[in-house]
Amino acid sequence: MDSSSFLTSLATSFVIFIVLVLLYIWLSKKPGNAVVYYPNRILRGLDPKDNGSKSWIHVALSSTEQDVISISGVDTAVYFVFLSTASGVNDISSYISNLAHKTFCLFLLVSYVVNFLIVFIFLFMKKESSRLWAFFLAVYWVSFVTYFLLWKAYKHVSALRANALTSPNVKPEQYAILVRDIPSVPEGQTRKEQVDSYFQNIYPDTFYRSMLVTDNKVVNKIYQELEGYKKKLTRAEAIYANSKATGKPEGTRPTHKTGCLGLIGKRVDSIEFYNEKINELIPKLESEQKSTLREKHLSAALVFFTSRVAAASAAQSLHAQKVDTWTAIDAPEPRQLLWSNLKIKFFERQVRQYVVYIIVALTIFFYMIPIGIISAFTTLKNLRKLLPFLKVVLDEEAVRTVLEAYLPQLALIVFLALLPKFLLFLSKAEGIPSESHAVRAASGKYFYFSVLNVFIGVTVAGTLFSTFKSIQKEPKSAVDILANSIPENAAFFLTFVALKFFVGYGLELSRIVPLIIFHIKRKYLCKTEEEVKDAWTPGALGYGTRIPGDMLIITIVLCYSVIAPLVIPFGVAYFGLGWLILRNQALNVYVPSYESYGRLWPHIHVRIIAALILYQVTMFGYLGVKKFYYSPILISLPILSLIFAFICNKKFYRAFHDTALEVVAQESKETPNLEQVFRSFIPPSLNYEKSDDDQFEDALSQVSRTGSFV
Amino acid sequence: MDSSSFLTSLATSFVIFIVLVLLYIWLSKKPGNAVVYYPNRILRGLDPKDNGSKSWIHVALSSTEQDVISISGVDTAVYFVFLSTASGVNDISSYISNLAHKTFCLFLLVSYVVNFLIVFIFLFMKKESSRLWAFFLAVYWVSFVTYFLLWKAYKHVSALRANALTSPNVKPEQYAILVRDIPSVPEGQTRKEQVDSYFQNIYPDTFYRSMLVTDNKVVNKIYQELEGYKKKLTRAEAIYANSKATGKPEGTRPTHKTGCLGLIGKRVDSIEFYNEKINELIPKLESEQKSTLREKHLSAALVFFTSRVAAASAAQSLHAQKVDTWTAIDAPEPRQLLWSNLKIKFFERQVRQYVVYIIVALTIFFYMIPIGIISAFTTLKNLRKLLPFLKVVLDEEAVRTVLEAYLPQLALIVFLALLPKFLLFLSKAEGIPSESHAVRAASGKYFYFSVLNVFIGVTVAGTLFSTFKSIQKEPKSAVDILANSIPENAAFFLTFVALKFFVGYGLELSRIVPLIIFHIKRKYLCKTEEEVKDAWTPGALGYGTRIPGDMLIITIVLCYSVIAPLVIPFGVAYFGLGWLILRNQALNVYVPSYESYGRLWPHIHVRIIAALILYQVTMFGYLGVKKFYYSPILISLPILSLIFAFICNKKFYRAFHDTALEVVAQESKETPNLEQVFRSFIPPSLNYEKSDDDQFEDALSQVSRTGSFV
Repeated sequence: MDSSSFLTSLATSFVIFIVLVLLYIWLSKKPGNAVVYYPNRILRGLDPKDNGSKSWIHVALSSTEQDVISISGVDTAVYFVFLSTASGVNDISSYISNLAHKTFCLFLLVSYVVNFLIVFIFLFMKKESSRLWAFFLAVYWVSFVTYFLLWKAYKHVSALRANALTSPNVKPEQYAILVRDIPSVPEGQTRKEQVDSYFQNIYPDTFYRSMLVTDNKVVNKIYQELEGYKKKLTRAEAIYANSKATGKPEGTRPTHKTGCLGLIGKRVDSIEFYNEKINELIPKLESEQKSTLREKHLSAALVFFTSRVAAASAAQSLHAQKVDTWTAIDAPEPRQLLWSNLKIKFFERQVRQYVVYIIVALTIFFYMIPIGIISAFTTLKNLRKLLPFLKVVLDEEAVRTVLEAYLPQLALIVFLALLPKFLLFLSKAEGIPSESHAVRAASGKYFYFSVLNVFIGVTVAGTLFSTFKSIQKEPKSAVDILANSIPENAAFFLTFVALKFFVGYGLELSRIVPLIIFHIKRKYLCKTEEEVKDAWTPGALGYGTRIPGDMLIITIVLCYSVIAPLVIPFGVAYFGLGWLILRNQALNVYVPSYESYGRLWPHIHVRIIAALILYQVTMFGYLGVKKFYYSPILISLPILSLIFAFICNKKFYRAFHDTALEVVAQESKETPNLEQVFRSFIPPSLNYEKSDDDQFEDALSQVSRTGSFV
Repeated sequence: MDSSSFLTSLATSFVIFIVLVLLYIWLSKKPGNAVVYYPNRILRGLDPKDNGSKSWIHVALSSTEQDVISISGVDTAVYFVFLSTASGVNDISSYISNLAHKTFCLFLLVSYVVNFLIVFIFLFMKKESSRLWAFFLAVYWVSFVTYFLLWKAYKHVSALRANALTSPNVKPEQYAILVRDIPSVPEGQTRKEQVDSYFQNIYPDTFYRSMLVTDNKVVNKIYQELEGYKKKLTRAEAIYANSKATGKPEGTRPTHKTGCLGLIGKRVDSIEFYNEKINELIPKLESEQKSTLREKHLSAALVFFTSRVAAASAAQSLHAQKVDTWTAIDAPEPRQLLWSNLKIKFFERQVRQYVVYIIVALTIFFYMIPIGIISAFTTLKNLRKLLPFLKVVLDEEAVRTVLEAYLPQLALIVFLALLPKFLLFLSKAEGIPSESHAVRAASGKYFYFSVLNVFIGVTVAGTLFSTFKSIQKEPKSAVDILANSIPENAAFFLTFVALKFFVGYGLELSRIVPLIIFHIKRKYLCKTEEEVKDAWTPGALGYGTRIPGDMLIITIVLCYSVIAPLVIPFGVAYFGLGWLILRNQALNVYVPSYESYGRLWPHIHVRIIAALILYQVTMFGYLGVKKFYYSPILISLPILSLIFAFICNKKFYRAFHDTALEVVAQESKETPNLEQVFRSFIPPSLNYEKSDDDQFEDALSQVSRTGSFV
């Protein structure tokens, strides 16, 4: 890639970005689009526009961490700690509003200036050894700045987590533990009696009651069917009411065919049909609920305690002498509990985990093989042979050019698009009990995939060292090289980063795609209020794919920070811009789908260090190739990184894995409503008719309420 | 070593053994020796001879595991599980007394017979490939038998531990946790207030009180001095009384000189002098006790709970968000608490641990260097130069021969004798808080030393493969080779094993050395009853050196089991005889100095598997060298061993590291005397004058008894 094409691509990206930002400013002001640009605010019952005339940038910058936590949860706040750590511009907001942080930011500013100086100075040095010395010092400098930032961030996140857990608001998951691997029921006892007597015996004073995990497959299916019919009924009624309103006095009663996709079968009156179906399903659901609660007990249970300390302590303690029975962990939030994974047994989980690791390793290393085979079969020639009727089209010059360019990558593109979902599926197959944990696991796998394939695949195996050489050959014209002919790979990655932050964040901010989809849906598909709401309800931030993407950028920035220092401003811009735009999105758009109280962080931390070590090893290799006399000293850096990782792990990690008792010791003044805590864990399919409360008392509480609390 | 010298050495060992056993039978019947042969029984207030006419073998064989536990504790019982697992003859006693176990023992018998058959059959095979097949099968057979035995043993030991912990007898350590790394005292609080309010807050219902760990260095010194003078006073009074009794009406008041070793200085009246000293020291001790309890608080504390479940759960829970503060573990027994290690901080412990690992690794790999240097300097020539006055002696032919034989090994002998103590010192320097843990750590280090140096040093690096060859060359005369010229190394190790079990266990049983020392002491040194008791009071079984020794034997037996099957009966004899003789010693002689409730076992288990893997790898190498076509299949065995170790670790280990709550949930019917539990942890130096109880109330309980219990 030559310099002009690089600049062209950069300029194009930038123009697209500006257009998207302007689009955002224009579109977001239209009241009809408020549900697309401010869904989070609307869902919380706020006016989308109460910031008055302040620009979105101003609002994002002046928002505090506490705002983010209260609006979007601790996990989102932790993600911002990550972004600001990565961009090095820690606490942008507090820098502006709070003078006390100025010294720290000053330090960072100095750190960047020093970094630039070191790197640029070497370009003017004439003696090769001097330049290598500059390289050498820069590697140390970058490493220590990274250690410092990571340490500060880990400490900060740990405090965030402690604060969130200390909060006196009753969170149901803080009063419960998840017990798996319950041994088979002894003769003459029910599962319920077994579980209750076991915990009653160990915790006579703090045990409240237990909820057996049941096999909800059938009941869930009926429930979803029922909900589906209810939605369809509302829709049919809305269409009917609409047709009445638009003139016809009687209205047209909507009809549909009962067969496949509504295309075949008998035509029926929709409202009647759905009503009939619903009336059929309700008793079926009720009886299935009863039989599920009575009979379909699995070997897992949720156990509730009367205090947070008791639950936190129980989640960390070994209960049974047989370690693989009665295993307890802290209960995940009700909304992120993966019910179907709870029955998987101790050693089965271990086996599944390793099987999944092997599959992932095979995927990472050999994914090109099946893709290559598919590509080989989908050449133009083969297409013409297999699908002769396309011959006419394929012989057109323009079509051929486009297809020749994209066809070989088609399989790869499909593969890359499906990969995150595939990895999430694999992670859930490990037997992980909570959604957030599964997302973390999938995100970790994706990180290794992207670093190993995208980064190492393109760089180290390819031409990283050749770029080193080209600078080496003409040291005098180093600045020229940097400016005019940026090393091939570096240019590739610079374009990549620029594309990602200009176009990626531009699309993110402008929400063009969701906007179009929403308007199409509202115009042509949605008939009821509920359907309209479904059309705009936003998702979560999606850490699973976002973080590995960011990690790849960090790896690129670190590894090129010395050899192609132009990457540094690009990296800072990526994370700075990301911080700004995602802050806006977090405050106004996305609604988190779960809360893990910052458990995300240790995961991010370890992978940043992995990227750092990759950088240090690469530089060690480079200086070794250059026969720099002192390069063996660089071997101390990866070791230092490992020690740093070890110390951080020892000092912080366990507080993320377990709940420290001191942070939950401050019980809220009023006694929590434990009944409500208990009920919040009942899945909706088992909680259908609120009026029918006795049923749970019957079935769930055969021996319950044995706790001293009631 | 030729066959005749091997047989001679074997016969000599056997004769020595017989003589020692006869000596034991004769000497142990003499009433005057009862304190040497039955000290454990005497200390427990039993008649040494209540077994009547039964032989010691009969008594040992008919003792049950429960007897061993009640007399010598769970650790000793676990050691016997190890010995019987190692000898393969599980449950000798129950085999004899209980027919239900017969099937299992039958299985083992069959297993040994099959093993012998496999190995001996190959010796008669003419085709090399057939013999290699026999080798191949034998390796698999030995491995699977080992897995089976280890699995059974781990299960059994786990049950033993659970039983011991369930026992309703009040054990003080079950009501306490050890808290280290307490952060510095906040302004306006005392250390006591800080600790009490912290735990009061987390455990409002179950916290009883706390005991601060103090710096006892000075007070211990004064206390020991005082105790020394008291002993000397009793001794002086006994001498005086004795001299009065033996005629002189006034008696001779004993005197001594106050200077170095009683050789120089002023001569004083001993009784008066010691009385004076004691009277001086008592107030000094008291004031030092007070100042220690008031001021010398360290950053550690023992925290007591009102129930065993509360303590067990607290010991496993994370207390502080800062993971390196307020770290809690279960309290060790009072008698094995290493007070001086308790103040060592979290990261200092980590650093110490790794430093110690490095020192141990250096010791293991390079211990020959300093010893070689010392040996080089202590040759006869050098001695004559350095110590010319020895010239006359050194020129004697007889003296020279002996010295020439032993002088080179002198440094090695001294080194090997001091090594266990050195390793124990290193393990304690790691900052380990309990004696039993330090012994386990030292024993692990010793295992690696002996396997790497003694076994691998002698065998693999030397001539193991040459012995394979010599059998290989003359396959027809294999039986002859086995009978007449046992491979050199195998003979060395057979002699070694025979020596160890005949002479070692003979000495162990006959207790010749302690007997002689006791009689000398009683005759010439002991003047008081107390001194006599000190002279015969036995030590503990000494797992620290015993287990690595046994492990070395296991390694030898495993590795030679296929190539030189004669080693198998020797191994069985070693462990069988060891079982029998140590059973006698455990029942009658040794008094355990601590109880770790079987924590020993996981440690033993892992090292047996390490020995097994060494064996499997050796055999894989051997069959590979022989170009046996299927030898790569053997690589599955080390992997299988690792998987086995992993499964065992997952299934059993945590129940040894932590206390399972279900086993301590059965609280004893009567409320334990918590005051007594608390007091049992006060070190004797701080507990001097029983009458002076208030002092502890004052100093230890500034804010204590805040618990809801009192």
